[in-house]
Amino acid sequence: MPPEQSFVDDPDSTREAIMEATYTALCEHGYADLTIQRIADEFPKSKSLLYHHYDGKDELLLDFLEFMLDRFEENVVCDEDLDARDRLDAVFDHVLAVDLPEDREAFTSAMIELRSQAAHDGDYEAYFTRSDRVFRQRLERIVEAGIEEGAFRDVDVGRVASFLQTVIVGSMTQRATAESDDALRATRAELDEYVHFRLLAGRR
Amino acid sequence: MPPEQSFVDDPDSTREAIMEATYTALCEHGYADLTIQRIADEFPKSKSLLYHHYDGKDELLLDFLEFMLDRFEENVVCDEDLDARDRLDAVFDHVLAVDLPEDREAFTSAMIELRSQAAHDGDYEAYFTRSDRVFRQRLERIVEAGIEEGAFRDVDVGRVASFLQTVIVGSMTQRATAESDDALRATRAELDEYVHFRLLAGRR
Repeated sequence: MPPEQSFVDDPDSTREAIMEATYTALCEHGYADLTIQRIADEFPKSKSLLYHHYDGKDELLLDFLEFMLDRFEENVVCDEDLDARDRLDAVFDHVLAVDLPEDREAFTSAMIELRSQAAHDGDYEAYFTRSDRVFRQRLERIVEAGIEEGAFRDVDVGRVASFLQTVIVGSMTQRATAESDDALRATRAELDEYVHFRLLAGRR
Repeated sequence: MPPEQSFVDDPDSTREAIMEATYTALCEHGYADLTIQRIADEFPKSKSLLYHHYDGKDELLLDFLEFMLDRFEENVVCDEDLDARDRLDAVFDHVLAVDLPEDREAFTSAMIELRSQAAHDGDYEAYFTRSDRVFRQRLERIVEAGIEEGAFRDVDVGRVASFLQTVIVGSMTQRATAESDDALRATRAELDEYVHFRLLAGRR
């Protein structure tokens, strides 16, 4: 049930307005306290659109997750003018930054709550399986580029990407669920060692 | 409100019976569908004990988490006859095993659901901050032992332990929330590379 099919007058901006309202409500209330009404409260257009198109908050949130993932996939090409080492660093710095703006901190917490729904909900599990694959493929492309540049050793790309992704998922989980500033700093520093010993060793 | 103060006739076994009922109910229903009544259904003794001592499922679950962590802390000394490399491998094999018995799979899912409560509940956040510290200290002791044995390079113990812990948290999260057999295998294999390049390189 893709909502854009019904938003005939101005589909793109209407869907984006719903998605923006969902983002705002999710950052403000988290998953546990979120209701369709609270999303509607952030929605400047006709509330009935929201109620008409979504049967409940999970259906809306799954559509929101797909929307965010599509946007991510459209935007990942932007850093391809950097070399592989700098692209990896940019990913690590982004995910492992100790001080996040308040809305990114809140959004990370909400994403961990959404992710935990996958423990008992097959639709969420299917989504996070797909999003893990998308993020892993992005990491694979960076590591491949590093090998092609001659900067990285000829490692097993899929294995390295899976490992880095596990570190990223672990960091996001720790950030949202524990006092973790020291752990984030330590993990960020150790990632540099990993890149040094595993990917760069013996290279220029 | 430590329950053992009231279990005057046979405190240990009564508390343990509550904890066992909680474990069973958590594996069966997960966090989202858990109620005090469902825990009471697994409890062979007087149900009123449960209702008398806990105000709600979260109070009982937090006590359960503390109980499990205490038990973990009492039992970690058991593998100290192994050398550090084998102890690390044992931890990795335990956490990253692809095929888990059904109850451990269900328990890991429930733990991820409990952990995500920390995104909006300070009591859960305090617990997972403490449990992360306990597990990190265990990893630190293993890495320290490896350095003392002369098997590991003289690395920054805290940083390596934080990093490994992040990998473990990430793996548990992926296991519970995505189809992740391939990711678990890849991460397990890459952990061997990490140990090889970062800890063992240049050693015997």
